[in-house]
Amino acid sequence: MNTPRYLAITGGIGGAKLSLGLASILGPEALAFVVNTGDDFEHLGLHVSPDIDTLVYTLSGEVDTETGWGCRDESWQFMAMLDALGGETWFQLGDRDMAMHVERSRRLAEGQGLAQVTKELAGRLGVAHRILPVSDDPVRTRVQTTAGWLDFQHYFVRDRCEPAVTGFEFAGAESARLNPDIAAWLESEALRGVILCPSNPFVSIDPMLAVPGLRDRLCACPAPVVAVSPVVGGDAIKGPTVKMMRELGVPNSASQVASHYRDFLDGFVLDSVDVALAGEIESLRMAVMHTHTVMVSLEDRTGLARAVVDFVDRLG
Amino acid sequence: MNTPRYLAITGGIGGAKLSLGLASILGPEALAFVVNTGDDFEHLGLHVSPDIDTLVYTLSGEVDTETGWGCRDESWQFMAMLDALGGETWFQLGDRDMAMHVERSRRLAEGQGLAQVTKELAGRLGVAHRILPVSDDPVRTRVQTTAGWLDFQHYFVRDRCEPAVTGFEFAGAESARLNPDIAAWLESEALRGVILCPSNPFVSIDPMLAVPGLRDRLCACPAPVVAVSPVVGGDAIKGPTVKMMRELGVPNSASQVASHYRDFLDGFVLDSVDVALAGEIESLRMAVMHTHTVMVSLEDRTGLARAVVDFVDRLG
Repeated sequence: MNTPRYLAITGGIGGAKLSLGLASILGPEALAFVVNTGDDFEHLGLHVSPDIDTLVYTLSGEVDTETGWGCRDESWQFMAMLDALGGETWFQLGDRDMAMHVERSRRLAEGQGLAQVTKELAGRLGVAHRILPVSDDPVRTRVQTTAGWLDFQHYFVRDRCEPAVTGFEFAGAESARLNPDIAAWLESEALRGVILCPSNPFVSIDPMLAVPGLRDRLCACPAPVVAVSPVVGGDAIKGPTVKMMRELGVPNSASQVASHYRDFLDGFVLDSVDVALAGEIESLRMAVMHTHTVMVSLEDRTGLARAVVDFVDRLG
Repeated sequence: MNTPRYLAITGGIGGAKLSLGLASILGPEALAFVVNTGDDFEHLGLHVSPDIDTLVYTLSGEVDTETGWGCRDESWQFMAMLDALGGETWFQLGDRDMAMHVERSRRLAEGQGLAQVTKELAGRLGVAHRILPVSDDPVRTRVQTTAGWLDFQHYFVRDRCEPAVTGFEFAGAESARLNPDIAAWLESEALRGVILCPSNPFVSIDPMLAVPGLRDRLCACPAPVVAVSPVVGGDAIKGPTVKMMRELGVPNSASQVASHYRDFLDGFVLDSVDVALAGEIESLRMAVMHTHTVMVSLEDRTGLARAVVDFVDRLG
């Protein structure tokens, strides 16, 4: 009866890749996903949840595998007409993708919570695993830059991460209630481990950790908590992680990511190119495993997932 | 300086056809359109204005000429995905068309009025003529049927006009303020005539007449007011006009349309097939002109427009 359970914490494209691997080896009873909502925003009157959508599209097979976000077989007629009408076109919304934003927004306006809406819409696309937004309450990442404070999507998409970062805030996080299903998974006797996917620490994982109760539960978690490095050979596979590290004056090293989570991490997964960092990370009092972490093929995703779960099981 | 001015009152596809003809012979200084908003509705959180859109798309050349509504070169990816997500799909929203609803809704939510939004969005598509929604305040047609009261689009689109009609109401009309630009055109010394396009009297024209001030101004109008019959040989070219007449126990004759407007009409344009009705309509104390009114080609639209304007000018 008591199926062993794993909880994956993810945001963004790299996280979704490992999530797909994990979902291919662990069934819906054994695996759930905690997803970042810090990059959600209201756009054109719609509630857009980029990290939820990337995960839903990835797990359902709807994702555009070239970009890692948005829908496959997408068309852009809406955007072209919006442009003709003088609307805001800096955030790309495909015709298929629009249905997600419109239907989510409609359901939220009816009073449903984000978790329930996510469950139902993901279910419609055939996703059986639970996707748990960190909170139904708004958490909004804001980026402090040399050009001033920017809403996350203005920084990330409109300004293409160009302004130099000096800090972050997660508006609403302090008073946000942690999704109770996340607490239930973390407190479950069946919990075998928690996996932080290779996501940006500053803008994918930290917004979730800012929601009261999550970090505490990770610190107190009797099952191992491990993270997979989003930094490989001093570079990020995708996204501004390393650019942010440089601007924040932090060495662009996988060991810095391990250090970032040192208060609750029991294990860290390094790419084999970074094996020289193992000793430094072990000195943070966590176990280290190295493997091939760059995910290009589906086999890469499944292989890394298997290696990470094995690592978690060894630590348990 | 004082360009002669004409005001066309329109709703729906037949009205838009004549409107296009009128716009091809009268410039933006000489012609403005009063448009029905009684079939506007909130759908999926968006403000949809079907009659405004039909006119905007028709005048801009964006219209799907096969259907008479929606956009040419349209695609339906949004609808297919909405269907997959379990959303409401009874009202067809094309991918290009969606941009209009989203951008209009965004601007309305910002506090702009419907008239201003309409002017700006139509202008973006190259429409120079003024399109004047009857009011910025909501007017919502509701249809009393043997199946109960129905919101207009539920009756018209979802239920395909199947329930038998017993009456109408125009919620909000009593307290709606007439668009001041409509009052200004009707009170202009340059006004040469008012043209009711061949639109459904019950659900395209009556909702506008229910807005305080419009009917009074038409009754008091020193320039001729003429209507073009939407009923030809006892049939409607498109839409439920004749079905409604039958259900309401009104003879399905063009003369009934003339009678419907008899308190303010100075002239009536019949199709030549209905020339036998001329005497009956003249007995309502209005002038009658007959011509070919069925508009298939652009030449038909322009030809009818020219004939109607000549008729108005003769009555002036």
